[in-house]
Amino acid sequence: MYDLIIIGMGPGGYEATLTALRKKLNIAIVEKSKIGGNCLNRACIPTKYYRAGAHQIEKLPLLNKYGINLSSNSIDFLQAKKGKDEAIGFLRKSLSQLLKAKKVPVYKGTGKIVGQNQVQITYEDGKTETIEGKYILVATGSIPVSIGGIVPDGKYVITTEDYLENMEQLPENLLIVGGGVAGCELAYISAQYGSKVTVVEIKDRLLSSDIISPDISRLLQRKFKKLGIEFKLETSVKDYKVSGDKIVVNLSDGSQLKVDKILLSVGRKPNTSDIDNIGIEKDERGFIKTNSYLQTNFENIYACGDVVNSPMLAHVASYEARVALKNMFDEKKIEVDYSLVPWSIFTAYEIAHVGLSEQQAKEKGIEAISGYYPFTYNEKAVDELESDGFVRLVFDKKTKHVIGATIVGIEASELIHVMAYAIRNEMTAEEIHDFIYFHPSLSEIFLYATYDIVIGKLF
Amino acid sequence: MYDLIIIGMGPGGYEATLTALRKKLNIAIVEKSKIGGNCLNRACIPTKYYRAGAHQIEKLPLLNKYGINLSSNSIDFLQAKKGKDEAIGFLRKSLSQLLKAKKVPVYKGTGKIVGQNQVQITYEDGKTETIEGKYILVATGSIPVSIGGIVPDGKYVITTEDYLENMEQLPENLLIVGGGVAGCELAYISAQYGSKVTVVEIKDRLLSSDIISPDISRLLQRKFKKLGIEFKLETSVKDYKVSGDKIVVNLSDGSQLKVDKILLSVGRKPNTSDIDNIGIEKDERGFIKTNSYLQTNFENIYACGDVVNSPMLAHVASYEARVALKNMFDEKKIEVDYSLVPWSIFTAYEIAHVGLSEQQAKEKGIEAISGYYPFTYNEKAVDELESDGFVRLVFDKKTKHVIGATIVGIEASELIHVMAYAIRNEMTAEEIHDFIYFHPSLSEIFLYATYDIVIGKLF
Repeated sequence: MYDLIIIGMGPGGYEATLTALRKKLNIAIVEKSKIGGNCLNRACIPTKYYRAGAHQIEKLPLLNKYGINLSSNSIDFLQAKKGKDEAIGFLRKSLSQLLKAKKVPVYKGTGKIVGQNQVQITYEDGKTETIEGKYILVATGSIPVSIGGIVPDGKYVITTEDYLENMEQLPENLLIVGGGVAGCELAYISAQYGSKVTVVEIKDRLLSSDIISPDISRLLQRKFKKLGIEFKLETSVKDYKVSGDKIVVNLSDGSQLKVDKILLSVGRKPNTSDIDNIGIEKDERGFIKTNSYLQTNFENIYACGDVVNSPMLAHVASYEARVALKNMFDEKKIEVDYSLVPWSIFTAYEIAHVGLSEQQAKEKGIEAISGYYPFTYNEKAVDELESDGFVRLVFDKKTKHVIGATIVGIEASELIHVMAYAIRNEMTAEEIHDFIYFHPSLSEIFLYATYDIVIGKLF
Repeated sequence: MYDLIIIGMGPGGYEATLTALRKKLNIAIVEKSKIGGNCLNRACIPTKYYRAGAHQIEKLPLLNKYGINLSSNSIDFLQAKKGKDEAIGFLRKSLSQLLKAKKVPVYKGTGKIVGQNQVQITYEDGKTETIEGKYILVATGSIPVSIGGIVPDGKYVITTEDYLENMEQLPENLLIVGGGVAGCELAYISAQYGSKVTVVEIKDRLLSSDIISPDISRLLQRKFKKLGIEFKLETSVKDYKVSGDKIVVNLSDGSQLKVDKILLSVGRKPNTSDIDNIGIEKDERGFIKTNSYLQTNFENIYACGDVVNSPMLAHVASYEARVALKNMFDEKKIEVDYSLVPWSIFTAYEIAHVGLSEQQAKEKGIEAISGYYPFTYNEKAVDELESDGFVRLVFDKKTKHVIGATIVGIEASELIHVMAYAIRNEMTAEEIHDFIYFHPSLSEIFLYATYDIVIGKLF
């Protein structure tokens, strides 16, 4: 009997493995597809690879300011795809080699929990095998949802997974259905790599979300316009029809588009439909019910990642894996705490957030004040020719503790961690202001965003 | 009588101005040259501008991995210099406009303290004027030193300031005397922009310093070799002679070089030789003596930045300016605290450090353990094609508090602030490990650098 069977080798399964191996546990992994899961193979990591390329493409015309004269250049998506496969292949191989070195058995089939300690694996050829574990961790992730009769066929209508794992050629005209995070990320990438992109979004703004304030949506929308990315808000797809090589799409506003592909990007649902036959409790949307220790209704079966009802983010999955492993094998149990989950978006701007927005603070009855500073005058951002964007810090007016931060612009996804640490340690505006930041650094923006509150307004 | 006279408009003077204006003080500025001081006009900011260009030049051959095919490119230093001037011009103009908008008088001459409340300004035409202030802040910075009979002449032998402010054409062959921070930064920039560079350093390694461990010097030296930058350690210049258009240099190792320019980069000294005639106390090296409130021996005269004996860094100057202003005008006085000064170097690698090294911990009688993780497997670094480098965290073995951090590689100069906050807040290895970092981010490296200590070793 294994100490632990991990079903699903995405970010949750990977982190659980790393922790388990360091705890010298005897583990088994069940994974029906590639190790690394969606995140590594067809979501986060390919997105950030292509985004790095897209951002570089956007920057090419500016390089003459550094004395770099490019007499001509061509953009080749297939070549980028090969580079992406190489980067991801390297990361996947590193992971495989670790598993090999540690002699961890990897059962390459679909896992199903058939007893409190039993996982049945069904292989591609239909054969089955059952293994036993003292503990089981369900980390099978999520799958894309479709809406309104738009059915992915892998050719005309594709999912973000099709795009990020396999697509070799960008369509000339691309319709993206859904202007959320993934939709806006792939809109930017596709446009930079040469597609004519239209985004349709049923809500009244791109990146519509409680956490993202409307001014950030407006900023992104202005930038999309500048980059020639079209978007239609409060609009949906009425119907579509393949006609020759093209797809004719009728939109709810009465307009018609002719495109080469439709990219469906309207969300994901937990991959739990056939995960067990022993009665693991799920909610009406298919999320596995867990207590705050991440235990299911079976005390030795835990779940983490997109299968539980927490933010569908890779780093939440890996955090939950660490918590679950601690609760399985350590004496002291800990509860999950989602109060400080940083998130970032990599579209035409990097956008990052942690903690509470002013709106959320208000809803919690906290009187909030905020500090703001643009990257415009940040010397390093100017040197990097990327001085668009700003930071907005939210403070509890009474205690002056920082309780939230939003950053738009250069390196937002890294800078956000400075503020995450500040929030965790209940730092005040004054403590943030009095800190010594390297000059010139982007991080100095925190010093300047606290000036109004700590010293007084300039105007 | 002004509330405050600020002599010197570099990072210290600038920060003092910002703070004073927000405190609604009536101030005057004395600056003999360009506002922004050395940092903005001929040190930090031009260095980072050129470094951004140099780094981009280094990355050009990799861009095909993103499907970006550059059929040909040419590098033009003069054009980069124009871009640099434009960026710095923008920043200087922003500063000027603020001063104008706030109607701050700027006396464009050399300031000398001639009474406890009196500053005499000598203009270029020899005329003088005396103004009075309740408080005086001396922030006149530093000037380059020369050694061993190598005398800057602005043509054959230049200083880093000559290079960064005015140089329009790179020499074909450049000899850099001094392999410290500025020497290594300008060696990288010059080599990327096309010079054949040789560095001579009298010590036995590049970046020789208490804080920089020898393995980092070795890493940089390997990279310099790869980039074709020559360096000669434990070597100095014996003599040199201009012969035609070339300089013939005899080195202490008996070898001879023919170069087009010598860049002198052997350090700086405080610019205090003619700052007063009222007896402000200075030490034997010319640093103004201050107490921990940054007061000189005159209670209303404060000093900050390179004129006081603290780390010669722009951000230390601006920090000291904030402290000095607080001590002049607030009820509660605070003492300067240099225990958490982050620093960064922008050479072929970004190198950043904060807190104690293992060596320094040992000297303080702290038993230290360290956590290490390379960028090799960091997914974002791989996506950015920049996975060279590592983080090393130093912990107090007893308390497990993090007490120091060194980062080499991508965005080290920003990431260091996450650890600076961790040290300030006495976070433990476990707290750093249990934190949620965005995935994929470079900041995740902190989670992985604590695995060995918190959970156990992998091998």
